[in-house]
Amino acid sequence: MDPEAVAKAFVDHYYRTFDGNRAALAGLYHDASMLTFEGDKIQGAAAIVAKLTSLPFQQCAHAISTVDFQPSGPTGGMLVFVSGSLQLAGESHTLKFSQMFHLMPTPQGSFYVLNDIFRLNYA
Amino acid sequence: MDPEAVAKAFVDHYYRTFDGNRAALAGLYHDASMLTFEGDKIQGAAAIVAKLTSLPFQQCAHAISTVDFQPSGPTGGMLVFVSGSLQLAGESHTLKFSQMFHLMPTPQGSFYVLNDIFRLNYA
Repeated sequence: MDPEAVAKAFVDHYYRTFDGNRAALAGLYHDASMLTFEGDKIQGAAAIVAKLTSLPFQQCAHAISTVDFQPSGPTGGMLVFVSGSLQLAGESHTLKFSQMFHLMPTPQGSFYVLNDIFRLNYA
Repeated sequence: MDPEAVAKAFVDHYYRTFDGNRAALAGLYHDASMLTFEGDKIQGAAAIVAKLTSLPFQQCAHAISTVDFQPSGPTGGMLVFVSGSLQLAGESHTLKFSQMFHLMPTPQGSFYVLNDIFRLNYA
């Protein structure tokens, strides 16, 4: 699978899972995984999913604007940089965001998220 | 030096150099370095600096809003995620941007930029 296809498939899968069944994101993180969400630092799959499922909105829909990716060096990882907007249920306006992921290969030939940094883009 | 101090010192140095003497950014990139600038992919210190010095503005001033950082795994690298705004000379409004860097350690105890992804945040 070429890197562009991997990046796009990951982004599609990640946000579809976030919007449909946030708890299922646990499968994408490992114990060493780190999330920085609006400056809050969280480590480990369980704590990350606890954070994501306790955000102050239950339903949301992400729309992706751009996906950039680069190989991250000798470990075979990939950096994915996303911009897009987030529509919350019951809100008329959307929130712009930027997010980066560092994907690392698994022995099974898949990827997990080692690093995840999320920021809203305040106007 | 603790990771937060490294991240902040890098960000301060990077944007001060960008705004003051863009060609001197060459010292921060290596031949393996990659830049994705608004979707354009460039590799290698010389090509990256050629891109940055040929942007359609000569003078600019970056203002940094947020700096997030995480260790990037077993190679001793660091991911730095920046949001801020860019003021171009002669323009009254500013451009919001998000940018990520993957810093890798050098044998001399410093860091170089292996990965660099830049996107303007369109309103």
